[in-house]
Amino acid sequence: MTINPVEGFKAAGLHCGLKADDQKDMALILSERPCRAAGVFTTNQVKAAPVIYDQALLAAPGAQVRAVVANTHSANACTGEQGMTNTRLVAAHTAQAVGCRPDEVLVLSTGVIGIQLPMGAIVPGIDQLAGALTPDAWGDAASAIMTTDTRPKLASVKAGSGYTITGIAKGAGMIAPHMATMLAVIATDAEVSQGVLNAGLRQATGHSFNRIVVDGDMSTNDTVLLLANGASGGAVEEDDGEFQGALNEVCTTLAQAIVRDGEGATKFVTVQVSGAPDEDAARAIARSIATSPLCKTAFYGADPNWGRVLSAAGYAGFPLEPDRLALWLLDGAGEPAFQLVERGEPADYDEPAAIALMGGPEWGLRLDLGLGEASDWLWTCDLSHDYVTINGHYRT
Amino acid sequence: MTINPVEGFKAAGLHCGLKADDQKDMALILSERPCRAAGVFTTNQVKAAPVIYDQALLAAPGAQVRAVVANTHSANACTGEQGMTNTRLVAAHTAQAVGCRPDEVLVLSTGVIGIQLPMGAIVPGIDQLAGALTPDAWGDAASAIMTTDTRPKLASVKAGSGYTITGIAKGAGMIAPHMATMLAVIATDAEVSQGVLNAGLRQATGHSFNRIVVDGDMSTNDTVLLLANGASGGAVEEDDGEFQGALNEVCTTLAQAIVRDGEGATKFVTVQVSGAPDEDAARAIARSIATSPLCKTAFYGADPNWGRVLSAAGYAGFPLEPDRLALWLLDGAGEPAFQLVERGEPADYDEPAAIALMGGPEWGLRLDLGLGEASDWLWTCDLSHDYVTINGHYRT
Repeated sequence: MTINPVEGFKAAGLHCGLKADDQKDMALILSERPCRAAGVFTTNQVKAAPVIYDQALLAAPGAQVRAVVANTHSANACTGEQGMTNTRLVAAHTAQAVGCRPDEVLVLSTGVIGIQLPMGAIVPGIDQLAGALTPDAWGDAASAIMTTDTRPKLASVKAGSGYTITGIAKGAGMIAPHMATMLAVIATDAEVSQGVLNAGLRQATGHSFNRIVVDGDMSTNDTVLLLANGASGGAVEEDDGEFQGALNEVCTTLAQAIVRDGEGATKFVTVQVSGAPDEDAARAIARSIATSPLCKTAFYGADPNWGRVLSAAGYAGFPLEPDRLALWLLDGAGEPAFQLVERGEPADYDEPAAIALMGGPEWGLRLDLGLGEASDWLWTCDLSHDYVTINGHYRT
Repeated sequence: MTINPVEGFKAAGLHCGLKADDQKDMALILSERPCRAAGVFTTNQVKAAPVIYDQALLAAPGAQVRAVVANTHSANACTGEQGMTNTRLVAAHTAQAVGCRPDEVLVLSTGVIGIQLPMGAIVPGIDQLAGALTPDAWGDAASAIMTTDTRPKLASVKAGSGYTITGIAKGAGMIAPHMATMLAVIATDAEVSQGVLNAGLRQATGHSFNRIVVDGDMSTNDTVLLLANGASGGAVEEDDGEFQGALNEVCTTLAQAIVRDGEGATKFVTVQVSGAPDEDAARAIARSIATSPLCKTAFYGADPNWGRVLSAAGYAGFPLEPDRLALWLLDGAGEPAFQLVERGEPADYDEPAAIALMGGPEWGLRLDLGLGEASDWLWTCDLSHDYVTINGHYRT
């Protein structure tokens, strides 16, 4: 995918001494003119200082944004008054370095909970970043927000009407629907009203970042930011299908990239639930399957042990008629390849071929409940030895 | 713990050809006189045939039980009409072999979902078991219901009033509160009314089997049976503290044994939540912590990464005041050893000593919410490489 520059935006990603080796560890994104901005944030009751800070900033009437600064190493969560003071200092110093007002700077933090920001490295880091800004450094910025990610995550769409949407994201563990240890910044040079920006981000997030499960954990820091500076002159109207489509594509690409790079993940699995009485039931059952350790280890082992899938559906908290259940294994294109269960009982299928399909990197499941017309889906990954290795000794 | 025989009960556990090697794979428990019986069953919407069968049998007015027969290999879940027919055949053949009525036989199955009972091995197995019954074979019976368990689980209490309660259990994966892939059979020679038996089992289960989490999965087959044949002559009155205490002790010992032998478990962790506005909140937050893969891998890695604990509390679905949170690491006796978090911020503690404590086999956490007086707790284990190994390739 070509990552297009966005008119009037610059980015930077550098090593500023927050990581022990020489990996990039701080990012800065700047718009030369003020942006309208929309944000979606974690629903965790324990919110990091930058989340509280950004939410307040964007809630102010007529809020405008010029810059987004991001650090790794510390999530700046559970850090009390000092943590909030540090976030304000980061915004103020960034404003000074790039020449804007402090209330035009959004702050993102990711890393370990409960340690203060290393201000001694961050403050000079901001100065370095301000000096390194270029229109083409989106890849550097994406690299600079990685934690347990193994690769940077970028997406970009150039709309026919002449504007661009480019985004970066990070996240690999603590990923659950309704936001994740996940940061995303999406920039566009389209001219978009605040109302369309807010509604558009909410819709795009609902079909992308809120549809992914790595481990079912939900972070204190999850944030998706969308900035629009209007520099291309391309205007977006209300109900503009082209803009929403492009935004959905960028968000979907980034969200899928997070699951594909899930901690220890070896497989990308789409879990569909159809025939549900309503969407809530479909989503809850899909989530129950996507978070079940027994299902996820069976995915890892390429084991069509469908009993675990039916069992996970059965404890999701919604009534089922077991003898109406049907389950299909889907191929990488999402098409039914094997029917594993028919009317709640084992179907006759080619098990070695099903195992071979599940050994591949991308496939899916569709569970039909036989109860109604509603459906929903999630994207998830498997639970591997490497997940345990990564998280058993992440910090110490 | 001494495993006491129970007057009028006999047990057997044998290899009947259901497992590939020569491990014991079927169990039979028989009372020479009719028992009152109580049962607690899975709340999974997808219920195995023997669960449906046993529930119906115990729901009949004046139900009496003489025998319990258990098989491994097949869970007899998602097996349709044939599965239910096979359960009836197992009960009928057991009745014939031991000389009682078919409606006096309860059936337990555990193993893979979606495969039929291997009746060709089970039917002669029942005959062998009937010929092997002795008062002292509780250990054999406990061994014969193991699946991924690494050791048999037994508990026994001899009450001062002259009766005995002895129980066996199995279960290692698919363990969650509100029942687990877990079977337990508890026998007593006390004389107990049906009402006391039902209420006593419900209370004992609530404080034992419903307080354990291995992986958060809930099985199609979970069953706890309590049989009382009155053979000792020891009569239990309503509100009999001695009986309830003894029953609680047997259930607690069995439930803890399941967690200690959790799939891949290296640590037994008690998760307490105090200072909650009500017990529902306390239990939901304890469960969120006990099922979080990030918390469980940190337990495995002996990493006092308490941010994951606060984060898991924060997404449990109940309002929190983050700056009131306090977290303690508890020693093996349940006493506070280190305060990790104070008013939502890092407390000053001896981290190497905390890591050393967490490296041991048994410790706990207490999270105080600072919101009220209610508290609750769960027992859980860590998530290790071996869990993934066991479940990634259990079936294939």
